[in-house]
Order: sequence, then structure tokens, then C-alpha cells
Amino acid sequence: MFVLQNQRLEQQLKFLYEIDKLKTIFRRTNLIADPERFENSAEHSWHLAFYVLILAEHTNKSFDLLRAMKMVLLHDLVEIDAGDTFCYDEKAHEGKEEREKNAADRLFGLLPQDQGDELMQLWQEFEAGETTEAKFAVAVDRLQPLLHNYVNGGGSWARHSIKRSQVESRMSPIQDGSMQLAEMMNAILDEAVKKNILSA
Amino acid sequence: MFVLQNQRLEQQLKFLYEIDKLKTIFRRTNLIADPERFENSAEHSWHLAFYVLILAEHTNKSFDLLRAMKMVLLHDLVEIDAGDTFCYDEKAHEGKEEREKNAADRLFGLLPQDQGDELMQLWQEFEAGETTEAKFAVAVDRLQPLLHNYVNGGGSWARHSIKRSQVESRMSPIQDGSMQLAEMMNAILDEAVKKNILSA
Repeated sequence: MFVLQNQRLEQQLKFLYEIDKLKTIFRRTNLIADPERFENSAEHSWHLAFYVLILAEHTNKSFDLLRAMKMVLLHDLVEIDAGDTFCYDEKAHEGKEEREKNAADRLFGLLPQDQGDELMQLWQEFEAGETTEAKFAVAVDRLQPLLHNYVNGGGSWARHSIKRSQVESRMSPIQDGSMQLAEMMNAILDEAVKKNILSA
Repeated sequence: MFVLQNQRLEQQLKFLYEIDKLKTIFRRTNLIADPERFENSAEHSWHLAFYVLILAEHTNKSFDLLRAMKMVLLHDLVEIDAGDTFCYDEKAHEGKEEREKNAADRLFGLLPQDQGDELMQLWQEFEAGETTEAKFAVAVDRLQPLLHNYVNGGGSWARHSIKRSQVESRMSPIQDGSMQLAEMMNAILDEAVKKNILSA
């Protein structure tokens, strides 16, 4: 790699090169536009930024849009080291917290300290899910794969024999971010069961 | 698709489903993390949001970060209908403006009018490249593939026999967004020529 005179800029570029790896981390969700292919975590994060932008008016409390967008853009970066953990795989969740914490230390540690600290704080805020911004960011992160599974006629629900009760439990944080989106989600789950693409 | 009671929300979902297609539009730039694969425009847009966020301090004039981030996130949506136009392919640029204008009308027209108008305005602002936010957004959009080509030992420059003068001409808007990034880019092009990964 080219050695720049400006150390700060060099750290910034190193981070920007490194996060390219998120494009190679694949999730269990299929694309709507190409149901043969799994979504990667970088394009997923891009999509969520639009979910935040377009659905913000349905939030329970008004919030800082920029902060929520930053959160969804960075929330999966830790997967670069820790991998994607399928949400319905209980076994895979063992040690997840530790793996992701180490990943956050390494990745955000590539940046100049002030910037690394900001991103670390935003990631921890997302993980804690307590602020209004984090609640909405978490809500859309849950909602988006549900909609893909619904539109794709079952998707990962069908492949992994997931039941409605499991989906409901996974989706429970949506109401903390948006009652309106939680209502919509329930109506969609009713439809999904009726259409036999999700087991009751 | 499920018919919701809430027409506004239904339009919003329709748009969010539609833009999934950007994940299937491939560019001529290779990933750094997987040089065998081309980058798609959705993950490219995600990456640019980080370029804006992390490099903002190098801008010539301070700007509205949220506005610049929205611009890079949406700047390529028109490719869903118009396709990606390789920047060094002069022939492919014929009719590009018309194709992209029609795409913008259709895509942003899916949204409730107030939101569609906002996104259309942001896209036009990016295309015009005159505001501080647009200048910086355009600058990082040019810079990112250059860095990928550099790190990947030539990338699309090598495959399409692109010369330094062509790259310089393509990159000229970078200085309007950031003199510091333009200086860095020149140093990188010097190195690229020295390393024989770009023809003088």
C-alpha cells in the first residue's frame, strides 16, 4: 500500500480498504431482485439506510436521522471478523458477544482515535438498543429480512423450518421502534400463515 | 404483494422492494476483498457513505454531512433502469442523460410525492455537482474506484488500456470537493505509473 505523508489520512484509507470485506459476508436472506442469491452485509446495510430514511415518519418518537443512518451503515461491520450469525441459530450465538467485541476493537482501532471512538460508541448504542435512534435502527434491521422472506414466498423461514412464534419473538423489538411498523408486521405474518409460507 | 390499509406505507414499501434491484447492477470495479468479483452499485453506494463520513474533514468547505450521505446513497439508483455506464466508454454515454432522467421519474415516482420530490432534488443536485455537498459526493465517487484499481494492481485501467491522461481527466472534479484528496490522488497516480500498473 502507498505510504502517505499524512498519517491521519493513511489510517482513514486503511479503514476504508478494510471494510470492503463486508461485501464478502453473506447473510441467510435472499434478494428480492434475484432470489437465487443471498444478500451480503454491505448491500443489506445500504438497503437499511433507505429503510431509515423512507420510514422515519413511522417512528414512535422523533429522532436524529443522521445518527440512525450511521448506525445501520456500521451495525454489521463486526461481521468482517466475527461472521454473520443466523438469528434463529441458538448454538451459533455462543461467544458471539465476545467475538464481535474483539472485532469492533480491531476495526474501529484502525481509524484515528476520535473517529474510532465515535464509531465504537455508535455500534455499542445500536447493540444496547436503548436510545430512540437505536430502537428504530434495530426495528428496520429486523423488518427488512422479514419482508424479503414474505415477498420471496418463505425464503429462510421455509429453508430452516422457522415457525411464526420464533419470528414473533425475533421481531418483538420492532414495536419499540415503531408501533405502526409492528402492526404492519403482524398483518404480514397473518398473511404469510394464510398463504402457507410460514408455519403457524 | 400484500395490500396494506395505509396507502402511504404501501408506496414506501414498493419503493424499498424496487431498489433491491441495485444489488444486481454490476460495475467495472473489482472488490479489494475479492478481486475476482465486480462490485455492485448497492455495495458501492454503502462504501461511499463511509467515504463521506470518514473523509469529510478533508472537504474544501464545511458541509451538511447528512445531505452528502443521502446523495451518495441514492446517486446510482437510476442505474436500475438505465444500467451502469462505464466511465471511459464514450459511446455508451450517448443517450445516458435521457435514460437516467426517465429512470429517476419512474423510481422516485413510486414514493409518496413529498419523498419522491426530495430524492429527485438530491439526485439532480448530485448530477449538477455545484453545491458543496454535491462536489464532495462526486469527489468520493471518483476516488473510490481509483483506489480499488490502485490496490488491485491496475484493475479496470489495465483491462481497458486506460492511460493516465484519461484518468486525470475523469478525476478532475476531485479537486472541487477536496484539494487534499486531489493531492493524494496525484501522488497515487505517480506511484501507479512508476509501478507500471497505469500507462503514462
